[in-house]
Amino acid sequence: MWERGLGPIRLVVEHRALGGGGGPALRIYSSEPKGRELLRFDCFEKAPHFHIDPSGRDLITSLESPDDAITVALEDLARDLEGYLKRAGLELSRPLDCAAVVLALNEAEAEMRNPPVDLDALDLEALRRRRGEKWTVYPPDVLPAWVADMDFPVPEPIRRMLLRSVERSDLGYPLDPGETGLREAFVDRMQARFGWSVDPERVDVLTDVVQAIYVGLEVFSEPDEGVVIQTPIYPPFLGAVWETRRRLVANPLAEGRDRYELDLDGLRRAASPSTRILLLCNPHNPSGRVFTRPELEALAEIALAHDWVVISDEIHEDLVFPGHRHIPFATLAPEVEARTVTLTSATKAFSIAGLRCAVAAFGSESLQTRFRSIPRHVRGGIGSLGIEATLAAWRHGQTWLDRVMAHLQRNRDHLAAFIHEQWPAVRHFPPEATYLSWLDFRALDLEGGPHQFFLDRARVGLSNGTRFGSEGEGFVRVNFATSRPILDEILSRMHGALERAGRIG
Amino acid sequence: MWERGLGPIRLVVEHRALGGGGGPALRIYSSEPKGRELLRFDCFEKAPHFHIDPSGRDLITSLESPDDAITVALEDLARDLEGYLKRAGLELSRPLDCAAVVLALNEAEAEMRNPPVDLDALDLEALRRRRGEKWTVYPPDVLPAWVADMDFPVPEPIRRMLLRSVERSDLGYPLDPGETGLREAFVDRMQARFGWSVDPERVDVLTDVVQAIYVGLEVFSEPDEGVVIQTPIYPPFLGAVWETRRRLVANPLAEGRDRYELDLDGLRRAASPSTRILLLCNPHNPSGRVFTRPELEALAEIALAHDWVVISDEIHEDLVFPGHRHIPFATLAPEVEARTVTLTSATKAFSIAGLRCAVAAFGSESLQTRFRSIPRHVRGGIGSLGIEATLAAWRHGQTWLDRVMAHLQRNRDHLAAFIHEQWPAVRHFPPEATYLSWLDFRALDLEGGPHQFFLDRARVGLSNGTRFGSEGEGFVRVNFATSRPILDEILSRMHGALERAGRIG
Repeated sequence: MWERGLGPIRLVVEHRALGGGGGPALRIYSSEPKGRELLRFDCFEKAPHFHIDPSGRDLITSLESPDDAITVALEDLARDLEGYLKRAGLELSRPLDCAAVVLALNEAEAEMRNPPVDLDALDLEALRRRRGEKWTVYPPDVLPAWVADMDFPVPEPIRRMLLRSVERSDLGYPLDPGETGLREAFVDRMQARFGWSVDPERVDVLTDVVQAIYVGLEVFSEPDEGVVIQTPIYPPFLGAVWETRRRLVANPLAEGRDRYELDLDGLRRAASPSTRILLLCNPHNPSGRVFTRPELEALAEIALAHDWVVISDEIHEDLVFPGHRHIPFATLAPEVEARTVTLTSATKAFSIAGLRCAVAAFGSESLQTRFRSIPRHVRGGIGSLGIEATLAAWRHGQTWLDRVMAHLQRNRDHLAAFIHEQWPAVRHFPPEATYLSWLDFRALDLEGGPHQFFLDRARVGLSNGTRFGSEGEGFVRVNFATSRPILDEILSRMHGALERAGRIG
Repeated sequence: MWERGLGPIRLVVEHRALGGGGGPALRIYSSEPKGRELLRFDCFEKAPHFHIDPSGRDLITSLESPDDAITVALEDLARDLEGYLKRAGLELSRPLDCAAVVLALNEAEAEMRNPPVDLDALDLEALRRRRGEKWTVYPPDVLPAWVADMDFPVPEPIRRMLLRSVERSDLGYPLDPGETGLREAFVDRMQARFGWSVDPERVDVLTDVVQAIYVGLEVFSEPDEGVVIQTPIYPPFLGAVWETRRRLVANPLAEGRDRYELDLDGLRRAASPSTRILLLCNPHNPSGRVFTRPELEALAEIALAHDWVVISDEIHEDLVFPGHRHIPFATLAPEVEARTVTLTSATKAFSIAGLRCAVAAFGSESLQTRFRSIPRHVRGGIGSLGIEATLAAWRHGQTWLDRVMAHLQRNRDHLAAFIHEQWPAVRHFPPEATYLSWLDFRALDLEGGPHQFFLDRARVGLSNGTRFGSEGEGFVRVNFATSRPILDEILSRMHGALERAGRIG
């Protein structure tokens, strides 16, 4: 139950009879001790309505509307909260603070749109019925902890939007993505979260970040020209370089005292005149690093000196843990932005990769024009549900994401403590962002490598480190975006396999 | 209510309490006069179950299952119908005909999966709440009859599948499209409907047919080389030629006595050594022609003589009216297939263009290899719901489509009769396929052209003929995939505008 005082009144949000036609209720009380209930907005799935003076005269009015009841209720309240209070019998001695009302109603709306969810109560059998690749690629006795999907229920604002589209049979030709408000929603989000001002005209919508990387390599470089990548790296980066016949300029991360670090000297040495692109991943997958401003500034200096285009995959920007701060590469300086294409998507943080929607923000018109030299239709159509889901996520999903992040942080710390205590020979730096941990099993010299070892002997499906580049030999990546019981089962299975093989204890 | 006899028993399908947790029921009766009910399978959304001997002992068993109740019930019956009948007290004097059982159960399943829908009862206000382009591009007082979406409710098998994916939060990374069964479903459908044997390995999945056209022009021709198109044509054909900087070799359709016809002599004259591709649209949009075998064979002969690659957009193949028969271009002869890329999608016939999913079938490995030279990731990711919806449409949606086709045929004939009687100066050949009529208003010399005239004066949003090529000047395309009342309102508005302008009557 969420509660907040607002001068003479008190707002409470409750969630009632979820799944049974119920939904969120916003109750407004007089803030006197034992103050009576003045208003109640029952924004239920079935027969939404509101009460004026529910414990007295109890005037009930329907909230049925083509839009959802929450929108109707909150817009009405924002327009005329004082009028509603007056009708409920509350005479205000002075006007409410307008800014405080807006803030409180926004918070109430976020709470109403995001009912509580128990992220530790996942149903393994239900997960196994999913048809996406995470839960289908391995046999059913394997617990999958590989591809970067989360096991949690879809965020309620996205669920509602999808159901609404289906209910309305609204599955025909979508508007041009530029007309959907998606670019503006992205611009608003970047401003609010990172203080970054993006021109919506410089934003293009794509099916996914990997597509944008492939197109970027095609248009900003020629075959055999160099692409700098901080390895080990998300495997499609390597696939993109290889498949477009560019040349990999590997700049392996260095193992620092308590984190992986950029090897700037190595980068300066590796750069050659035929290197064209820095393909950055920040926050970095699989190391979990959130690069600091000094690190990024040093990178930018080298990129400027060599006249590189920077393609910056920032899809994990919403998954940064406390103590760290995401800095969009394009915000470092105007001359840096002018050479940067920033890629992101709601699909990672909101776990909707199957819906396919991403954005590219171009630091200059010239970059955008070059990118568009591969015609939009060659790049394919963007699905309407991907666009709608992204809008729902960015506009209404942050409260869900905040709760997920707190859960992920607890899982991350639990995993780190377990490894530290139980597997002291395994190197591991808790990630600063992402729900992925990068584990160095080299000291244990596991037969067939750790991926095969744990698949065969623990029936746990991890991501094979070798797919992240040659630096990943002896490593695995584990996805901890699941319930604590499932994570514990994964660790317990791995622990048992290590014990049976005589590698620990 | 659907009913069918099967030797000693009789199958009946009913739909009960739709929208209220109900669903289809399969009842099995003894076929004696006034035969008693032996079995009843209530495959409801809520608490599905079945009854053995419902009017007697009435043994009730739950059908709750991770799969849908229809699948469970029908699979059980297919396995052991005789066992069920015996438990219901029916002793068979001789075994049931196995083939007849399979056929009857398949028909029953199709009926169960496709509840009746009143295609004439569309809610205009609900349509206006859709966010796709058909209902949002024009102001709310305009009736849209332009882009090729249908106004009907989403087919029930697709609706169920979408709801199931949302319910399971099954929105993460999809399987590789090649692993989803989509190619095999396409192959089965082509075999069953057109007797065409396709190798699933020669099938690729794409986001949409227009994407495949763009990619095809890029890989099978060079800039400035010629692309033959039968104009007037679906506008993206022209956009693809223009945007990829190919050269349009227009081969305008000729106006025959009662249909548009291929101008084969014109085509022979227009062909030049630098012409590389025949970009065919069959069935043809906007003329509605379903080209006959002799016509296609003549085209193929020319294509062979000039060594053209044929890109054949056959997306309207499922929308062919009685009296006409779709012939996949690739089926004409092995040497024709070897130079043909066939494109299709379930999105047109099932009105799910926003979900983005199409297939390309290559007549040779060489064509496929050349097509794939534009990397898959440049072409973008395919959304999981597009794939799932296509599977649901192809596997379970034909009964819905059959009903829709009967409705469309009535609308087509109604429109044709109206024009013939009311607007005798308007040339119009009823389409042999598609839900699009191509109307020649040239004789009426409407101010600003017919599109602007009807938009301004009738508040009807048609497709502007000029977008289909210069041959479309003075034409509009009207989309009649709507309810009869809405179609009548469209015609009535157009009629009023013509009357007020003194062009008729």
